[in-house]
Amino acid sequence: MRLLLINPNTTRDLTDRLVASAVRVLPSDVELLTATASTGFSYISSRAEAQIAAVGVLEVLAEQTRSIDAAIIAAFGDPGLHAARELFDLPVTGMSEAAMIMSLSLGERFAFVTFSPRLGPWYAEQVARAGLSARFAGIFTPEEMFGSIASVAEDLRSPLLRVCLRAASEADVVILAGAPIAGLAADIAGEVPAILIDPIQAAVLQAVALCRLAPKGADSGSFARPPGKDSTGLPDALASWIARRP
Amino acid sequence: MRLLLINPNTTRDLTDRLVASAVRVLPSDVELLTATASTGFSYISSRAEAQIAAVGVLEVLAEQTRSIDAAIIAAFGDPGLHAARELFDLPVTGMSEAAMIMSLSLGERFAFVTFSPRLGPWYAEQVARAGLSARFAGIFTPEEMFGSIASVAEDLRSPLLRVCLRAASEADVVILAGAPIAGLAADIAGEVPAILIDPIQAAVLQAVALCRLAPKGADSGSFARPPGKDSTGLPDALASWIARRP
Amino acid sequence: MRLLLINPNTTRDLTDRLVASAVRVLPSDVELLTATASTGFSYISSRAEAQIAAVGVLEVLAEQTRSIDAAIIAAFGDPGLHAARELFDLPVTGMSEAAMIMSLSLGERFAFVTFSPRLGPWYAEQVARAGLSARFAGIFTPEEMFGSIASVAEDLRSPLLRVCLRAASEADVVILAGAPIAGLAADIAGEVPAILIDPIQAAVLQAVALCRLAPKGADSGSFARPPGKDSTGLPDALASWIARRP
Amino acid sequence: MRLLLINPNTTRDLTDRLVASAVRVLPSDVELLTATASTGFSYISSRAEAQIAAVGVLEVLAEQTRSIDAAIIAAFGDPGLHAARELFDLPVTGMSEAAMIMSLSLGERFAFVTFSPRLGPWYAEQVARAGLSARFAGIFTPEEMFGSIASVAEDLRSPLLRVCLRAASEADVVILAGAPIAGLAADIAGEVPAILIDPIQAAVLQAVALCRLAPKGADSGSFARPPGKDSTGLPDALASWIARRP
Amino acid sequence: MRLLLINPNTTRDLTDRLVASAVRVLPSDVELLTATASTGFSYISSRAEAQIAAVGVLEVLAEQTRSIDAAIIAAFGDPGLHAARELFDLPVTGMSEAAMIMSLSLGERFAFVTFSPRLGPWYAEQVARAGLSARFAGIFTPEEMFGSIASVAEDLRSPLLRVCLRAASEADVVILAGAPIAGLAADIAGEVPAILIDPIQAAVLQAVALCRLAPKGADSGSFARPPGKDSTGLPDALASWIARRP
Amino acid sequence: MRLLLINPNTTRDLTDRLVASAVRVLPSDVELLTATASTGFSYISSRAEAQIAAVGVLEVLAEQTRSIDAAIIAAFGDPGLHAARELFDLPVTGMSEAAMIMSLSLGERFAFVTFSPRLGPWYAEQVARAGLSARFAGIFTPEEMFGSIASVAEDLRSPLLRVCLRAASEADVVILAGAPIAGLAADIAGEVPAILIDPIQAAVLQAVALCRLAPKGADSGSFARPPGKDSTGLPDALASWIARRP
Repeated sequence: MRLLLINPNTTRDLTDRLVASAVRVLPSDVELLTATASTGFSYISSRAEAQIAAVGVLEVLAEQTRSIDAAIIAAFGDPGLHAARELFDLPVTGMSEAAMIMSLSLGERFAFVTFSPRLGPWYAEQVARAGLSARFAGIFTPEEMFGSIASVAEDLRSPLLRVCLRAASEADVVILAGAPIAGLAADIAGEVPAILIDPIQAAVLQAVALCRLAPKGADSGSFARPPGKDSTGLPDALASWIARRP
Repeated sequence: MRLLLINPNTTRDLTDRLVASAVRVLPSDVELLTATASTGFSYISSRAEAQIAAVGVLEVLAEQTRSIDAAIIAAFGDPGLHAARELFDLPVTGMSEAAMIMSLSLGERFAFVTFSPRLGPWYAEQVARAGLSARFAGIFTPEEMFGSIASVAEDLRSPLLRVCLRAASEADVVILAGAPIAGLAADIAGEVPAILIDPIQAAVLQAVALCRLAPKGADSGSFARPPGKDSTGLPDALASWIARRP
Repeated sequence: MRLLLINPNTTRDLTDRLVASAVRVLPSDVELLTATASTGFSYISSRAEAQIAAVGVLEVLAEQTRSIDAAIIAAFGDPGLHAARELFDLPVTGMSEAAMIMSLSLGERFAFVTFSPRLGPWYAEQVARAGLSARFAGIFTPEEMFGSIASVAEDLRSPLLRVCLRAASEADVVILAGAPIAGLAADIAGEVPAILIDPIQAAVLQAVALCRLAPKGADSGSFARPPGKDSTGLPDALASWIARRP
Repeated sequence: MRLLLINPNTTRDLTDRLVASAVRVLPSDVELLTATASTGFSYISSRAEAQIAAVGVLEVLAEQTRSIDAAIIAAFGDPGLHAARELFDLPVTGMSEAAMIMSLSLGERFAFVTFSPRLGPWYAEQVARAGLSARFAGIFTPEEMFGSIASVAEDLRSPLLRVCLRAASEADVVILAGAPIAGLAADIAGEVPAILIDPIQAAVLQAVALCRLAPKGADSGSFARPPGKDSTGLPDALASWIARRP
Repeated sequence: MRLLLINPNTTRDLTDRLVASAVRVLPSDVELLTATASTGFSYISSRAEAQIAAVGVLEVLAEQTRSIDAAIIAAFGDPGLHAARELFDLPVTGMSEAAMIMSLSLGERFAFVTFSPRLGPWYAEQVARAGLSARFAGIFTPEEMFGSIASVAEDLRSPLLRVCLRAASEADVVILAGAPIAGLAADIAGEVPAILIDPIQAAVLQAVALCRLAPKGADSGSFARPPGKDSTGLPDALASWIARRP
Repeated sequence: MRLLLINPNTTRDLTDRLVASAVRVLPSDVELLTATASTGFSYISSRAEAQIAAVGVLEVLAEQTRSIDAAIIAAFGDPGLHAARELFDLPVTGMSEAAMIMSLSLGERFAFVTFSPRLGPWYAEQVARAGLSARFAGIFTPEEMFGSIASVAEDLRSPLLRVCLRAASEADVVILAGAPIAGLAADIAGEVPAILIDPIQAAVLQAVALCRLAPKGADSGSFARPPGKDSTGLPDALASWIARRP
């Protein structure tokens, strides 16, 4: 089984951090490939940036879909997730969605803990989009500002731990949201009286499970692949895929 | 007051059709400018196509935001709407959202009538996204296939009228969804026992109302403009705007 | 275009205050007429009072419906709104509903700020009635008591400003609820980091938009006018209108 | 225990029909008084009519509240119910609300069967108002027109039975909605494979239960009685009660 | 009328306490029988314990159903309630459900006050199960630990009163949840500005009302009794009842 | 990794059928143990039967929890699922919940197809219990009666296929609900234009994923294990586990 982890941010260090966390839960018979966005932003933190980065995700998938079994969109707001599901014929998972889904069989309510209040509105949309508001306990963020995106998990360890304790009083499962804090869940698990989820681990495990399930069908319905269509000004691989050209 | 109607499709005939309907409700002191997408698809009909076209909308806005008072995204699924609101400091309306909002004070329940079942899932998402499911009576589409996107309003007039009658038995307000059937509402209003909404008219009137209201504030909150940020590989105007370069 | 602003309270000063705010956003081709209730209460502040005042609203409409294009019910709980929509063949807007609707395209979540906790339960009902609970961030009121209903906007300016700041931390859009604080939004807009809505402005702009849209239809459905019916003991104009007597 | 059954319609025959059904379930130690509206409509069938009739209900209550233990508003849309709860210090029940509440412990989902499609939108509002949409299976009505309101239960017996059978396939509990069909439930219970509720029976039993429970408190909260207030043009008893004059 | 109050806990003192509260509201023509669980737990306080105790409730009902008119499951989480409704042909009420239902006509929002945070998740499930989340203001518990289950109402009187005051600021109706605090509502009613409900009283009154209503039907639908079925290893009375053996 | 598949029914043939389907998706490093209920019913088909069978599930878990890594409750209504999560310190999955969760990343809406209308109400409760109603398209069942529970998948193949086609017009994902039709999804996948889920496969894959995730925490919260407690009349292993005796 070959999984492609697509980092929609342009920062390769984030890709490495995500992989480091993912491999801890990876079955031995699964190969994890990676792609890092070549255009866009060093770190996506708004709807507009996610909107733009999503096209890069589709482009990567158009190039590599034939040589992989499933893909993981490795940014917490899941940029391009539903478009990708519609356009490609393999399982695609996202960090927000997979973490929420995984939480559903571990507790009644889940919370997000993240490192910047600016991420809140965008992340909250994913909950509503998934129809999971009834089980959502809210977003919790520290007051402290972070310095560098590369070291936020280390710089804000204490404030994030405090926020996790607050979240744990409202929720059974706490999701540590955002690629830059991948790995933090394992680090602080012993100190928080709630179940902690590292979203990249959830996204990878969900992709593995979907591959094994090998879902067929969906020639119709919400994520049926659209008929071939011409376009103007798109990257070649994406234009070809959309046009259903070989 | 200067409004910019942005057609995210590349078909200029659709822009003309939309303008023809919009001007019927336009106050005399409002100037309506238009922009038609130069890249993307002749007619967007899936989430993936909307995802891609949205970036073109942001690009147009980055180029023209300084010389307009409000903008209308003139495709029914509102591609790029929330990203545009976040990124730009002027009112932005979309055809789906404005039509739904306008319906709320005309009846208890609204329905969508559109010309192709393929549009259903994408359009239905807009209802959930807006939190308006409690007032939604569903999507109604004819079985008949349409020939050309340019003449669908004429080619399918009878089937669409039949579908409107069905929708009218479930809803108080029927929204004729999709740019290619702009103008149809006025044509068949006398034949359907429900209130018909032409979404481009709703979107233009909503933009006018928001301009007059002149909302201020939102330095924080969901649609606060993000701080300046560098990017890689974006069109110049969009990159400059996002970087907050003058 | 002739709009009738109906103040369901018997206090003429409130009518003047509402008009003063409304004219700031009124297009130049719109004439704003007013009517102040002759029976009922100086200021409605409970469900029971609203229930009673609503009949006065219907009576005014029965007298004047033939000479106006749309009506605005100018009390925040919208007394008689749905009854009026059902009974009369022109657009009718209300301050609560219009403010909520307008907020939907300005932010994700709206809050109400008002000057007395007693108004809370009645106002909250309007949100549930409109099916908009998913986008509601709650009602915020000061602890301070107000002296005169005529000067509450001035007397409680500081406490209301503090409450708005609290509301702004939970909501993107803050609606200043209640006729006695009409005009306050413009006064304090610079001091609150959220979008402020003055409901009478929203209600007037919504009425203008609906007039331009000129919705037709609804011979059936939720707000279809009932067939003529006899009654006992009603004011003449209202009885005649309900009986469909010329 | 003295209960007052208030018929908000002006038709005394309806009062008699309601009493005939109510007494079948009345405990022997309960006295049932009645009042029939002296102004308003022979049969309320729209929101506007309910809005007007509600004031008559409040007037009756202001006159008789001191000599009764609880009141029942005996029209299916519960005109004036929440206003009455707020204004008076005794339990008040309504036919729609009581029937819905009673159904909650008899099955998972309830349906309304009524005799005219025109009643649908008004009745449906009560479900949303009560926050019970999750357990509502819809409104079912016959196609047939009824002749006289006095004999609709007899004239439409067959069509209503057919409609009940349809409703029984969607719901566990079928509520026979509308004062003119009081008593029908007992008549057809043997022919419908669902639990049938006669709303006047539910409303009377709910009033009896609330009287026995003797709830105290509510000096604050949603239904706290408003402070005394002057008014203009109201009937004497109602004005005095609202002013808290002895 | 003969009601059976089934205490699913094995503590007879709790049965006595429940009866003491119930008889205060019991009509004179109603006989109240009791049964105390002979297996299970002295006091159920988790889902698992409720799951186990529920079978005991079904067993008691199988033994006694032929000699009673209705049954009350007298533990707040309503162990076995829906199973009992399905299996037996008489009205069955539960303390949580009846208290919630009764609250619906006394205020807009209800809260639970209970004596241990551990009960929260289990109790909260009942609200969701009943589809009443829209009217739920939350669960409020004291920080203090209780000593003996037999005297918690007395030991924690002060902390529970403080918690009730907090709950009263969020809700119109406060439900004192849990058999060990039966009777407390009457004790503190004068000190809390909200309506207090003692759930055993609500459950008994609801059972009386349902007996008087004498619902028939439900040969189909959610709570239709299943066809006879063989089983292995069940207590005799329960096995016979399920097998529909005489 | 050692998984225990617990069949709460007493029919061993069903266990074999479930295992036959599960092993098709089982990773090679996972060992699948099984247990078949020794008391209860040959096939659970009502809430009451599920209530009783759940205790057997807890008993099996009390006996075997120390020698396994995760457990699967292999009956579609998930008898005992939440009680088991609370009581035991390992991941427990259920067929209904796992199938619903798995469907969330494969389509917008899921439907249940099952072989008997009697199962509907019980199965529908699981959707509400999980808070997933917003994504549920309903339950679809054939009119045809089945003969033997052992051969229902074969006997009703044609009717079930027709029902799946109907379900596929409302949902993107169709869940083939009920242990007796395990394996049918693979059989008919090519004939239905929707994604089909075999719930036992989903439940096994979900258990594997949760084992790899190795969630820690939950010393508090909804599924925290209760403190040790004495009991009366329980099977030894269960009583010991609940008492936290070694």
